[in-house]
Amino acid sequence: MARVVCITLNPALDLAFALETLTLGAVNRPQHAQLEAAGKGVNVARVLAALGHDVVVSGFLGGDNDGPFQRAFQHMGVTDAFLRVPGETRINAKLAEKSGRVTDINGPGIAVDAAQVASLLETLEKQLADTPADAVLVAGSLPPGLDVTAFGEWLARLKATGVALWVDTSGDALLRAIDIAPEAVKPNEVELADWAGDPLESHQSRLSATTRLHQAGVRQALLSAGADGVIWVNAQGAWQATPPKVQAVNTVGAGDTFVAGMLHGLLSGESEEQTLRFATALSAESVRHVGVGNARADDFSLLLQRTRVQHLHASHTEGAL
Amino acid sequence: MARVVCITLNPALDLAFALETLTLGAVNRPQHAQLEAAGKGVNVARVLAALGHDVVVSGFLGGDNDGPFQRAFQHMGVTDAFLRVPGETRINAKLAEKSGRVTDINGPGIAVDAAQVASLLETLEKQLADTPADAVLVAGSLPPGLDVTAFGEWLARLKATGVALWVDTSGDALLRAIDIAPEAVKPNEVELADWAGDPLESHQSRLSATTRLHQAGVRQALLSAGADGVIWVNAQGAWQATPPKVQAVNTVGAGDTFVAGMLHGLLSGESEEQTLRFATALSAESVRHVGVGNARADDFSLLLQRTRVQHLHASHTEGAL
Repeated sequence: MARVVCITLNPALDLAFALETLTLGAVNRPQHAQLEAAGKGVNVARVLAALGHDVVVSGFLGGDNDGPFQRAFQHMGVTDAFLRVPGETRINAKLAEKSGRVTDINGPGIAVDAAQVASLLETLEKQLADTPADAVLVAGSLPPGLDVTAFGEWLARLKATGVALWVDTSGDALLRAIDIAPEAVKPNEVELADWAGDPLESHQSRLSATTRLHQAGVRQALLSAGADGVIWVNAQGAWQATPPKVQAVNTVGAGDTFVAGMLHGLLSGESEEQTLRFATALSAESVRHVGVGNARADDFSLLLQRTRVQHLHASHTEGAL
Repeated sequence: MARVVCITLNPALDLAFALETLTLGAVNRPQHAQLEAAGKGVNVARVLAALGHDVVVSGFLGGDNDGPFQRAFQHMGVTDAFLRVPGETRINAKLAEKSGRVTDINGPGIAVDAAQVASLLETLEKQLADTPADAVLVAGSLPPGLDVTAFGEWLARLKATGVALWVDTSGDALLRAIDIAPEAVKPNEVELADWAGDPLESHQSRLSATTRLHQAGVRQALLSAGADGVIWVNAQGAWQATPPKVQAVNTVGAGDTFVAGMLHGLLSGESEEQTLRFATALSAESVRHVGVGNARADDFSLLLQRTRVQHLHASHTEGAL
């Protein structure tokens, strides 16, 4: 069992509506509506806790509507270390039609100021000094009031505590995170191409850019490569995983499930091959339904078998540079 | 100052998003998002409290997310007598695009059982016995678990307390409410045509059906007649009001503002002509902006002047039957 701190700086309550079809300019009556505590770090925490790890959730939460979060954390069995800020956490609407089309409406989130950002860092530093963690994950978008530069400085200070720092964000915040060489990041092809300054048009170029990301100081360099599956480069070598074919119902949470699976394997001392297979299969499991992946699914061993993992080369120095 | 109990059996939190345009199947980033305590009875209470009346709000509220309601009631200065039921009050999404198009997604609401319905009635009977009210308004849709027949029986028992019972609902629930001859109802043309069994194709047929509604025992029979404005028949006669032309921005709450204006005039002892003029002008005021009508608007006296009120006949026995 590992101890992981999952940080969501800009969480949301997801208000999910299931509709036959969405008619614009009319009153729509959904068959089902559900409000759920969400946010990428919360999703990862949910998976890790279900896998038996000791999980702390942190970040910023609006104090005025934290009830659904408190209930979710209790249900998940994780420790709530979220810093409360005045006001309400945003509510994002997800409108799912029977056709499979999903329309998202994502508010900006609750604004934070420099003092709150500093206060969260100090709290985390204190907590990590008191009870060391095996990894800290910072996941999701930045709240209004925290710009990319300040985020980079904040991450650097968190890294300076010595903890293994995983960062799963996107766009400019991700590029800034790579600058401080965290333990792990998981860009998509567009983001990695942005960082590398080259288009990633072939398998070879994707592997090459992921290897460069590792060489730039990211110990676990992960590329989320669409049809190409996942490419992973670390000091031991390079791997590629292709997920099993499943009927995709809902891809929300698939990336978070993958990150949780990787943390689980690595922190449990599994081999690279086992770790990547598990994370990829669990992520595939998650897209078959609403919510995160469930390793206790009846056919999970079948999904593991059907996940293809290739060892591309034994160490990045032999890479395709 | 009058004392009014405003009951909302199926309230909602309105989650309003302001969007440039809504793109289906994509992630939309609204310019503005706001969560607000809503429900027709809550809207009427808001207007009546602003006009200086002593207002009690009641109905069913989910105990798990009543924070925004508590804050709204405190801000409005009304007494919270809502019965808490386990779970969460529904959240309705309102997606407003710059073009003026509004898409509503209204969940079914929190389910109630027979015991909760009985408990609310007993509480209301006790409250009305302790502190008599000048009127009770029951507004909005029925929650899951309360069918139209049970609603009719519930209304009949509430009416039996002797209080003046206003009912502002729609469809079958409205037809059932008319059966128990409440103090006032406000059908639209389709609903009144349903009840009357005749299409309402002329001014004369509308006046005739409204008069029959009054003769069926509804003391204040109000017809919301679209382009024809409002037709009102009571024991003193019949009136018609045509609202002033305003630039319509948001019609949500216009009907509730009208009902509140009518209650205000009648309970303050104003003449029929003054009452109807005030209610119609205040309703017109409300459509110029988001939210309910504001009698303190700079140009409200102008809106009053521009509201046309005609006395159609002196008593319903002279009506066009």
